[in-house]
Amino acid sequence: MVVNKWDGGATIRRMNAEFDLIRRYFSRPVAGTLLAGGDDCALLPPPEQQALAVTCDTLVAGTHFLPDDAPADVGWKTLAASVSDIAAMAARPRWATLALTLPEVRHDWLAAFAEGFYACADAYDVALVGGDTTRGPLAATVTLIGEVPQKRAVRRGGARAGDELWVSGQPGRAALGLQCAQGALELPDEARAQCLAALRRPQPRLALGRLLAVRATAMLDVSDGLLADLGHLLRASRLGAQLRQDALPLAALQQMGVSQAQAMQAVLAGGDDYELLFAAPASLHEEVRQAGKTLSLPLHCIGRCEAGETVRLRDGEGRKMTLGAFGGFEHFPAAPQEST
Amino acid sequence: MVVNKWDGGATIRRMNAEFDLIRRYFSRPVAGTLLAGGDDCALLPPPEQQALAVTCDTLVAGTHFLPDDAPADVGWKTLAASVSDIAAMAARPRWATLALTLPEVRHDWLAAFAEGFYACADAYDVALVGGDTTRGPLAATVTLIGEVPQKRAVRRGGARAGDELWVSGQPGRAALGLQCAQGALELPDEARAQCLAALRRPQPRLALGRLLAVRATAMLDVSDGLLADLGHLLRASRLGAQLRQDALPLAALQQMGVSQAQAMQAVLAGGDDYELLFAAPASLHEEVRQAGKTLSLPLHCIGRCEAGETVRLRDGEGRKMTLGAFGGFEHFPAAPQEST
Repeated sequence: MVVNKWDGGATIRRMNAEFDLIRRYFSRPVAGTLLAGGDDCALLPPPEQQALAVTCDTLVAGTHFLPDDAPADVGWKTLAASVSDIAAMAARPRWATLALTLPEVRHDWLAAFAEGFYACADAYDVALVGGDTTRGPLAATVTLIGEVPQKRAVRRGGARAGDELWVSGQPGRAALGLQCAQGALELPDEARAQCLAALRRPQPRLALGRLLAVRATAMLDVSDGLLADLGHLLRASRLGAQLRQDALPLAALQQMGVSQAQAMQAVLAGGDDYELLFAAPASLHEEVRQAGKTLSLPLHCIGRCEAGETVRLRDGEGRKMTLGAFGGFEHFPAAPQEST
Repeated sequence: MVVNKWDGGATIRRMNAEFDLIRRYFSRPVAGTLLAGGDDCALLPPPEQQALAVTCDTLVAGTHFLPDDAPADVGWKTLAASVSDIAAMAARPRWATLALTLPEVRHDWLAAFAEGFYACADAYDVALVGGDTTRGPLAATVTLIGEVPQKRAVRRGGARAGDELWVSGQPGRAALGLQCAQGALELPDEARAQCLAALRRPQPRLALGRLLAVRATAMLDVSDGLLADLGHLLRASRLGAQLRQDALPLAALQQMGVSQAQAMQAVLAGGDDYELLFAAPASLHEEVRQAGKTLSLPLHCIGRCEAGETVRLRDGEGRKMTLGAFGGFEHFPAAPQEST
């Protein structure tokens, strides 16, 4: 509790509740800083001979989470989304700022949010060095600063025709988890728990990202949906691609009891899993596979980059399939008159 | 406009409107970066042998500005608040991220917001290197990264008993401007325009902050109100202070036609001016005054630090005056049972 005494004939006690909140919930000691908290700025030692990698993500109640979601999960995911961006550059996360906007002071909510946030910070070695607490509709913004030797950073635009396309882990679970949470899907208990965990406690693929630093030619994390994010990678690389339906990681989802069509929808259009999608030369196929084994993380080679500007999907017999239904997630769907 | 072609038997055109927005309004070319925009992270060259100074500020519609405030002013102020924090560390701003949450896409609003934001960025040499655009209640968060030689950074906690206390420019105008905007105060046209400009286009004291780098012992910017922020400086420095009423910059406000009591209230409790409040050794009095002259910026020596933990105010005849009414601004007023 911060109590100031102002003395001007009388003594007045004053509690600056905003700063008290910050101090109470977000002032754990941090290593690797010169000054964190309690000043106008945090002071950080510059990473020597490394580039800074900087990313910024906002989670808004009602858009990215529900106001009654468990606050510890919201805290985790708020930071995890940014850690995932750092992973996708093959960088190492270092320092975060947290801007938290709250409609009211609810200490139980804040304590749980902070617990989840710090759990993620501890898991990925992030120091919370500053932030802002404001009154308003519930939302949280993280800016995360990482470091990476400049030549090891993996961008989106370096893929070449012939490179294989890979995706990590099990995309689609978060989308099924969201359907479960909304009551739109019934799954067996264990499958439901897995999908909800993927939605609520995504595990950014930091170790994988760093292992791919000199192997992947292009990389990003799947947050908008696999196809939408593939579009970003391909556009930046000025390429098209061909995907093989029988190489998509559908089996694990189908074993949960969803149809092939549901599994396709979840894998291709579901966001929020924070898996890594990357291109790597076919000559490194075994090396990439080995990286997955080292990390006990499945890596799926789902297709190839090719010249052109289209994405084609073929089934196991080589027949063309339509991709129209798998558009990914948009915050601002285009107005009809703008979409042509 | 971003149009993706997905070809899987049919050709589907898709517009990713979120990224289109970012591209359209916030993708001006930036200098001094390795990569900015269009990837998971921005890549920045590390400042050599300088510490990083990092600050984060959120402006929420309804709390920090009104939804119908001119968006160009909101854009300016969103960045200016963070530049002011950098100024208060005697640092130099370099790179910003902007997280913008919008209830809907209004192109005229966005274009004007971007115009004001970039006007401030140009004025203070800031590169916008990344951000996030989300759907939700209107709010903007900036994280600003600056650089400063570690030993030149001015913190809050370095003041010593006997140091003089100074404030720059004309604190209180923004508070009067807010009263004008709310229809609670009538001022002559020119005074009204000055006060509204102070409220809407605050001028962070970046040049002053850097001139004070080896002179000020403690410094911060006045955002919560002069007395409230003085409390932060004194608490960090474990000191009290004595202020002289006749040294407070009241005259310019009184000449606008407000009473002495109104001027006192505005100067001591009004926030949002983003002036610098700092302590400096009395032996540097003339040097500090000269710095103000160099910048054509009035600097007011308003009192002295002293041992203790109270702030006392004395009038021109040395009589104690009460400070109880000038508490500054709080986002979360403490509940009565917590305030003792």
